[in-house]
Amino acid sequence: MFFASDNAGPVHPRVLAALTEANQGYAPSYGADAVMDRVRNRIREIFEAPEAAVHLVATGTAANALALASLTAPYETVFCTPVAHIHEDECNAPEFFSAGAKLTLVPGGDKMTPEALRRTIRAEGNRGVHGPQRGPVSLTQATERGGVYSVAEIAALTAVARDFGLSTYMDGARFTNALVTLGCTPAEMTWKAGIDVVSLGGTKNGLMGVEALIFFDPKKSWEFELRRKRGAHLFSKHRYLSAQMEAYLTDDLWLEMATAANANCARLAEGLRRAGARLLHTPQANLIFAALPRRAHQRLIAEGAMYHLLDGTLEGEDPDELLTCRLVCDWSISDALIDQFLTLAAA
Amino acid sequence: MFFASDNAGPVHPRVLAALTEANQGYAPSYGADAVMDRVRNRIREIFEAPEAAVHLVATGTAANALALASLTAPYETVFCTPVAHIHEDECNAPEFFSAGAKLTLVPGGDKMTPEALRRTIRAEGNRGVHGPQRGPVSLTQATERGGVYSVAEIAALTAVARDFGLSTYMDGARFTNALVTLGCTPAEMTWKAGIDVVSLGGTKNGLMGVEALIFFDPKKSWEFELRRKRGAHLFSKHRYLSAQMEAYLTDDLWLEMATAANANCARLAEGLRRAGARLLHTPQANLIFAALPRRAHQRLIAEGAMYHLLDGTLEGEDPDELLTCRLVCDWSISDALIDQFLTLAAA
Amino acid sequence: MFFASDNAGPVHPRVLAALTEANQGYAPSYGADAVMDRVRNRIREIFEAPEAAVHLVATGTAANALALASLTAPYETVFCTPVAHIHEDECNAPEFFSAGAKLTLVPGGDKMTPEALRRTIRAEGNRGVHGPQRGPVSLTQATERGGVYSVAEIAALTAVARDFGLSTYMDGARFTNALVTLGCTPAEMTWKAGIDVVSLGGTKNGLMGVEALIFFDPKKSWEFELRRKRGAHLFSKHRYLSAQMEAYLTDDLWLEMATAANANCARLAEGLRRAGARLLHTPQANLIFAALPRRAHQRLIAEGAMYHLLDGTLEGEDPDELLTCRLVCDWSISDALIDQFLTLAAA
Amino acid sequence: MFFASDNAGPVHPRVLAALTEANQGYAPSYGADAVMDRVRNRIREIFEAPEAAVHLVATGTAANALALASLTAPYETVFCTPVAHIHEDECNAPEFFSAGAKLTLVPGGDKMTPEALRRTIRAEGNRGVHGPQRGPVSLTQATERGGVYSVAEIAALTAVARDFGLSTYMDGARFTNALVTLGCTPAEMTWKAGIDVVSLGGTKNGLMGVEALIFFDPKKSWEFELRRKRGAHLFSKHRYLSAQMEAYLTDDLWLEMATAANANCARLAEGLRRAGARLLHTPQANLIFAALPRRAHQRLIAEGAMYHLLDGTLEGEDPDELLTCRLVCDWSISDALIDQFLTLAAA
Repeated sequence: MFFASDNAGPVHPRVLAALTEANQGYAPSYGADAVMDRVRNRIREIFEAPEAAVHLVATGTAANALALASLTAPYETVFCTPVAHIHEDECNAPEFFSAGAKLTLVPGGDKMTPEALRRTIRAEGNRGVHGPQRGPVSLTQATERGGVYSVAEIAALTAVARDFGLSTYMDGARFTNALVTLGCTPAEMTWKAGIDVVSLGGTKNGLMGVEALIFFDPKKSWEFELRRKRGAHLFSKHRYLSAQMEAYLTDDLWLEMATAANANCARLAEGLRRAGARLLHTPQANLIFAALPRRAHQRLIAEGAMYHLLDGTLEGEDPDELLTCRLVCDWSISDALIDQFLTLAAA
Repeated sequence: MFFASDNAGPVHPRVLAALTEANQGYAPSYGADAVMDRVRNRIREIFEAPEAAVHLVATGTAANALALASLTAPYETVFCTPVAHIHEDECNAPEFFSAGAKLTLVPGGDKMTPEALRRTIRAEGNRGVHGPQRGPVSLTQATERGGVYSVAEIAALTAVARDFGLSTYMDGARFTNALVTLGCTPAEMTWKAGIDVVSLGGTKNGLMGVEALIFFDPKKSWEFELRRKRGAHLFSKHRYLSAQMEAYLTDDLWLEMATAANANCARLAEGLRRAGARLLHTPQANLIFAALPRRAHQRLIAEGAMYHLLDGTLEGEDPDELLTCRLVCDWSISDALIDQFLTLAAA
Repeated sequence: MFFASDNAGPVHPRVLAALTEANQGYAPSYGADAVMDRVRNRIREIFEAPEAAVHLVATGTAANALALASLTAPYETVFCTPVAHIHEDECNAPEFFSAGAKLTLVPGGDKMTPEALRRTIRAEGNRGVHGPQRGPVSLTQATERGGVYSVAEIAALTAVARDFGLSTYMDGARFTNALVTLGCTPAEMTWKAGIDVVSLGGTKNGLMGVEALIFFDPKKSWEFELRRKRGAHLFSKHRYLSAQMEAYLTDDLWLEMATAANANCARLAEGLRRAGARLLHTPQANLIFAALPRRAHQRLIAEGAMYHLLDGTLEGEDPDELLTCRLVCDWSISDALIDQFLTLAAA
Repeated sequence: MFFASDNAGPVHPRVLAALTEANQGYAPSYGADAVMDRVRNRIREIFEAPEAAVHLVATGTAANALALASLTAPYETVFCTPVAHIHEDECNAPEFFSAGAKLTLVPGGDKMTPEALRRTIRAEGNRGVHGPQRGPVSLTQATERGGVYSVAEIAALTAVARDFGLSTYMDGARFTNALVTLGCTPAEMTWKAGIDVVSLGGTKNGLMGVEALIFFDPKKSWEFELRRKRGAHLFSKHRYLSAQMEAYLTDDLWLEMATAANANCARLAEGLRRAGARLLHTPQANLIFAALPRRAHQRLIAEGAMYHLLDGTLEGEDPDELLTCRLVCDWSISDALIDQFLTLAAA
């Protein structure tokens, strides 16, 4: 019963098979492999963006930090939510790769509102040379709390950015989970809604460790390549990144895995609701934040369930006190495990 | 006939098999996997260093840049050779990760001499607050030109560093190629010879992309972990790095592959010598720098041989003009391919 | 009627005289001048800190950014208020000099409370390697809104920092304005209250451009000197910084000027209150934040008064609408000018 | 007898008088002072560059590091000589301000040759994404050894840079010393000879601490202003920088002081030659590198002469052994002091 992270599940067998297939003979290194050519074309096709620059890195933090560094001068600030992965979970990587840019937190929860964004941008850029200059707006889709921006919501946020001449980045570590929730096209969820650069995450959705960065305007492509190398994120045996991404995009494996993860999450959420748990957000992707009584946590963890308790501690006097936890489903969680979890939670 | 880089060859099948085996069910992420515990213990055993801190990263540049950043203040300078990978081939990654430290080039070739090192250190550190301060000494073993430092040579260089109170780093991207050449123990080639931190390369020697960093004094371990995360080099699905490294160190696979690569290189060198080529260095590991007549290059490349021409161009008037090339053998090159290459070179 | 900044007033004549006096013949450069020896001793005496390291820089931002860089690793975060000068007015200088550390904003106003600080520190440091690590606590005394922390308040805040093993910095750009308000000793307001490093500002209090940095524990002194040089903040003709600081500390000029500035501010505040203006904070140093009707601003600015309007615009329909402004007094403002301002404000 | 540095001499009385004159009443801060407007216009006039962006900083290292940071991406390398101030004497400031760019040393002495520059640029930029990219060429005029590039030499070097599409920077810490040696116009020595950005040094030539940066193409002007603020080099009481620079450029004071310093140096050089000393370079500006017998140094230093001994030590057995020293003259050195020095040197 592993619900701690979608990073903890196994890689899809078709991805492993692709690695084996890629392991034939010699191949040019550092991204010049033939598989990468196919990946680039496939991604351009999927995103309806024939001019886009497409590059691969191996971690989500690398994708975010390198993309933002390409968009942000060191005297600028990036606008994001207070719970953004780039703010909370990357140990200052965006600050590092941008040579010391700031992150400005747009008040609110995991989904930014256009009003809050506009107010925050306005307040930030009015001190001339003294304050940081306005930099890009960074959205996470799906969000760090399991929310999903609608296409209209994305467009409204990018419109605010555009009003101030700012660029926009979408942290798509869980891009596909959001995509299958919305049922729209990748283009609709990105450049057609005003996004300039997006990461297409693979690692949290069944790959071993690959994220694609897509620059819809390719003019920063070479700068990105230099930053990637300088950041030590250019893989010599790049074909093994390419092969994972190719398998991902073949026969809709990416959609299949995200659909499964979301469905697992919905089953879990529904079960928790029925068991009387309080869900803090309406889960639209594969994350749940739920409040359960202490005794439910005690039972679950005693039986080997793995997940993050966000506040309170297991040891406490009141067995009925509600403690919040985060539960994440990946593509591979079985119904049986979910049901086992629900049984323990409800007992 | 692929001699362009040991980065272009395939991964050893036992490594792929280990990935498949690791792909069972759930595992804690970010380095907390059980395989990593075994890897850490195995490396401590191999290096006779029970206290050492051991961490994995996925690229050689990450290993170098992160290790040096842990050893170097931003107002210091790293001592290395003019052909060091950290100077020539990492697009300023060491400068980036160290927040702007300098590299000071010790005059000479690919192998530093103690005399040149001492002279250079002396000249560098005598301008008080005005010049950069003296930082670590960085050696590459085996070197970027296929040379191998003897244990005594390493000890002589680290003795100079110690005279000035400086720490020492060994870039071991081709560590195992040097090790099997010397026939010594890993401990003898590193901490017993005065090395403080070493990278044990896997990527150039049959892995997909893993390098181990070994800090013999573990007190920088936590700082390193923070720098790795901040550099976006901490893998969430870390078990797939661990599994590669475990396979590498099981049943002496690492030694077996390096021995094969060196033997392939020796066969190629011997054949080239017999064919009248001039070798610029005595190859002690798996790299050759050779001067061949232009017409030999023309034949080879026409037949599909892949390698780097270092000076001159294929198109030129004089068919007898000698052009230098770099030839690298990996573990998987067959005798037949080598002989085919030699036949073409000699024709 | 210049109330825009204490940076806009003239230098005290005794400071200019000291520059002239220092301008005799030759003097060792880069801080080795004899005047600096006297300044160092005088500051150690004033702060009752015979071991303290004392260094001069020319701007307040340099003082803050260099001091914090000496206290903060790049993977850490500095705790400060949302209105801290280091956050709002230094164009990312702290992030730059620290190689990408973060600033974490402690919720509240211009004066941090121990409770908010404790809550914020607790919330920040619980994500292991993923989040930034806890770094120093930075206080501004007097604050950016004209407030002054009492000695007990400072001690309470540094006690929280000490509970978590964190160091403490006091941005003393208006140190002396606070000191004369409290009537305590420099030692009581700093190291006796738990402060590790403090800047003693001169620029906003009648000097041309000098701030002293005082490290009560001198062990970071050499690192600071290297960071200062590398930051291009070591003056070759250092004697002209030393001479300013010596004049400042001679015959209590520093106290005299701060007392005058505070008194000017008190006269202005009292007059504004009588004129019916609403003061947003109780001014304890030489800054006032006041809300005046639009028509009062229109009159004042038409007559040449200079100050910052913080919200709203001069052109608006409602002449009675209250617009907030910031008014700063320096040592040299005359009673006549203040009274002229008050007359216009009240008319 | 102070010949250690042109940083050790006094400020010209007319400069001090200008500071006193500037010290009247209130003035807008941060560069918005009226004196700065006049300075900007005057420099544009002197350089025949009506569009140029002109900014002031207080140290030569700040001028160099900030100008280069505006011209250099972090994945690039700056071309300079092995004795360049930016390489030897700034404690990694250029690396810091550029976020980790490299300096590539063009082999040779203190004056770069076009051939060496071309060879070095060619060798540096041929490793694709792996090596640093080619960045600006940085010249020092007058050089760190007292040499002066002719206008034709500058033009030849900038032509090489232009062949590779690289920008050019002139470190003019001793700009005026070179200018009066050549007898050309500022425009001829800079933009007409292909220079993009130049610093006009004042600190080594009789000011307290001011350097002007002149961007002939103003499009980087705002970026520079942000970098200056973020580097903590924007002075709040900016009028005191402006006033120094205005005095400098009034009634040819800058030319007068440089002419005096050069003449002092020529007198000293001529005297040393007559006394049998060996001059290592032909002094064309205000620096001399001379080899004198140990006993001459002993006599001089015993009598209080101050200067840098570059090799050897005062205490040694052979009184006739030649030891090299660096002697710098500033505008204020009297003939009497020079003659006293010469008498002691020759005795």
